[in-house]
Amino acid sequence: MRLSQSLFKTTKTIPGDEQAKNAKLLIQAGFVYKEMAGVYAYLPLGLRVLENIKEVIRSEMNDLGASELLMTSLQPKDTWEMTGRWDDETVDVWFKSKLKNGTEIGFGWSHEEALMLLISKFVHSYRDLPGGVYQFQTKLRNELRSKSGLLRGREFLMKDMYHFSRSQEELDEFYERAKQAYLNVYAKLGLGENTFLTFASGGAFTQFSHEFQTVLRDGEDTIYLDRAKKLAINQEVYTDEVIAQLGLKKEDLEEVRASEVGNIFNFGSVKGEQMSVQFSDESGNRKPVFLSSYGIGVSRLMGVMAELFNDNRGLVWPKQIAPAKVYLIAIGDEKATNAAEDLYNILTERGVAVIYDDRDVRAGEKFADADLMGIPWRVVANNQAQADGYEIKDRIENTPKHMNAQALVKLVA
Amino acid sequence: MRLSQSLFKTTKTIPGDEQAKNAKLLIQAGFVYKEMAGVYAYLPLGLRVLENIKEVIRSEMNDLGASELLMTSLQPKDTWEMTGRWDDETVDVWFKSKLKNGTEIGFGWSHEEALMLLISKFVHSYRDLPGGVYQFQTKLRNELRSKSGLLRGREFLMKDMYHFSRSQEELDEFYERAKQAYLNVYAKLGLGENTFLTFASGGAFTQFSHEFQTVLRDGEDTIYLDRAKKLAINQEVYTDEVIAQLGLKKEDLEEVRASEVGNIFNFGSVKGEQMSVQFSDESGNRKPVFLSSYGIGVSRLMGVMAELFNDNRGLVWPKQIAPAKVYLIAIGDEKATNAAEDLYNILTERGVAVIYDDRDVRAGEKFADADLMGIPWRVVANNQAQADGYEIKDRIENTPKHMNAQALVKLVA
Repeated sequence: MRLSQSLFKTTKTIPGDEQAKNAKLLIQAGFVYKEMAGVYAYLPLGLRVLENIKEVIRSEMNDLGASELLMTSLQPKDTWEMTGRWDDETVDVWFKSKLKNGTEIGFGWSHEEALMLLISKFVHSYRDLPGGVYQFQTKLRNELRSKSGLLRGREFLMKDMYHFSRSQEELDEFYERAKQAYLNVYAKLGLGENTFLTFASGGAFTQFSHEFQTVLRDGEDTIYLDRAKKLAINQEVYTDEVIAQLGLKKEDLEEVRASEVGNIFNFGSVKGEQMSVQFSDESGNRKPVFLSSYGIGVSRLMGVMAELFNDNRGLVWPKQIAPAKVYLIAIGDEKATNAAEDLYNILTERGVAVIYDDRDVRAGEKFADADLMGIPWRVVANNQAQADGYEIKDRIENTPKHMNAQALVKLVA
Repeated sequence: MRLSQSLFKTTKTIPGDEQAKNAKLLIQAGFVYKEMAGVYAYLPLGLRVLENIKEVIRSEMNDLGASELLMTSLQPKDTWEMTGRWDDETVDVWFKSKLKNGTEIGFGWSHEEALMLLISKFVHSYRDLPGGVYQFQTKLRNELRSKSGLLRGREFLMKDMYHFSRSQEELDEFYERAKQAYLNVYAKLGLGENTFLTFASGGAFTQFSHEFQTVLRDGEDTIYLDRAKKLAINQEVYTDEVIAQLGLKKEDLEEVRASEVGNIFNFGSVKGEQMSVQFSDESGNRKPVFLSSYGIGVSRLMGVMAELFNDNRGLVWPKQIAPAKVYLIAIGDEKATNAAEDLYNILTERGVAVIYDDRDVRAGEKFADADLMGIPWRVVANNQAQADGYEIKDRIENTPKHMNAQALVKLVA
């Protein structure tokens, strides 16, 4: 993209009510726009980051054999009354409204019940199971407070996967595979070292649920972490009894702030029983379908990455996630501009995303924007570029290198 | 995808309240699931169709120089009060709800006002304009009636583009380019012959707005069409005066039913004035930003295509839009299965989307499903396939051909 043609730019103006570091940085860099507390629009560069994170997750979900679909935001009351989750006393984040004819409807904050009902139309026999589906869906949650930027949204992008099994054993086997897929996602995003499987409250269904928590100074949760064992306990279930039960020792545990970047729920046969979603087993007996669900906050991950990957000059995106690989600047006369144009065309043809800063502003401003946006490679074309090569500098290094277009393409493509 | 691993299948059971042909076909083929009237979930095959349509549109929008972003569903009241469009008397499709603190919010049914406010943070001078943005966004509209399947959704996927100009001339120039881009989209989707630029009511802003209407027996609109001139008049503005004004003759006009597959609005400087969104021109004078907006109902297009592209055996997707290029079936013993597996691997590695029907059901059922789903090529691997080639049949032809894997890949890739 040519910056001269973009409507958006970096900014020094942050909304007065914005307290979260992640949102401040992303607003300054022109990646997001605050519509209201906990509600952010994704500007072109921010949307690219979101899409790149989605691609990492999608690839892992597909490897698990799950199929992508898209559920609806509008949810009928009846579906959720079957499990008691329509009630605002039980679920306190519903947004609700009414159709013209007065029928109450809700806006999807999760989709377990909707999917159980959906698959009940397709699953009749043991031969139809197991199977999994996932979606990237905009969830709406009426959060009481929302002051952590993208870490707690009233509107946010979630990847939610649902798996349907014939038995607890089949569920457990998939559950372990999904757990590993989640760890793969965090590793690929560069969060592997900081992200820990965490025991949290299991709610009404099981003693524990599993979360994945990324250690973060401004995280909303407190966890007790055994770094050596790569395991943690959420404050909500942190008791002497639980520590002993998990084979951990109080003296090995470190209290840290963290942000939940994934959670997985083992519902067993509870939803199948509540909603009468059943299948016929090999002997013709009707049995409840077993459900497990697996969530990742995609936009929250973007916020967590912004919180962690930055320095005093701005954002520092991992190469796979950055909205562009190269930030291109010409410094000089027509020769420099021609060299920049050439490289822009070559890279674009090779499918490399480039931000070409062809604006009529000072070079210093361009350098500052390249750093603020956190683009992995900054490339400068000067008057000698065609002869002596382009100057290329990694965002996290201080010394540039020189290389010709061919070598440069090889490096960044 | 291997059908044996899919949770979904074709079905004979249609919800009793479903009247629309498009929805009936798409439900039968396992592409969509009806959540409530006007609200459909997209199952894996349906989502692929939707994504393929999006790709066609995205490519044309990018060629216009517009950037993709993503606005929010939650909308603040203040933004829309600036133009009087918060009022339910003026806009009768709002879904509204409240934040925990009692603040009223709406759910986005369009985004003109939201985008004007957004760009006012970035656009200060004439140097910052012109520019355009677009999004694929799930719109929520509280329609009184919704009985046309995907043709009129309460929740639907829309591509909406917004362009910001410095003058009416600049707006008009982009408007013409965008009109052509829309015609390109319909042509690529195979709707070019049936889709007509239509003069419709311009509302408060101009005498006319432009729609694109696809002729359709069960369409919701009535238009008066001059086929030779490829122009139409919407019933809502069909008067002798308008006919004369457009240089058309009553005797050349044919009354047909049609479905609106796109609409474009020339707001001129009205919104800029109402919302005080301004820029400084070359002389330093403050002037209102000119706005035009361009909508395409992506899920509606899927419905229109389902209405038009079908026969008595089911759907007939254009090759570019189909959820898979090939429907693969093995008929025979282990030899046939091996030949099918080989081809499945070859095609998948080449990036060709294949539905491999490896289920333990009769061949006749597989043939029927291939036709119902409307997959462009049906390929059969029998015991002689490795030696004599695979049997390949186009969805719209009756006689199969035989070819080896190499020739087959060349044909379908």
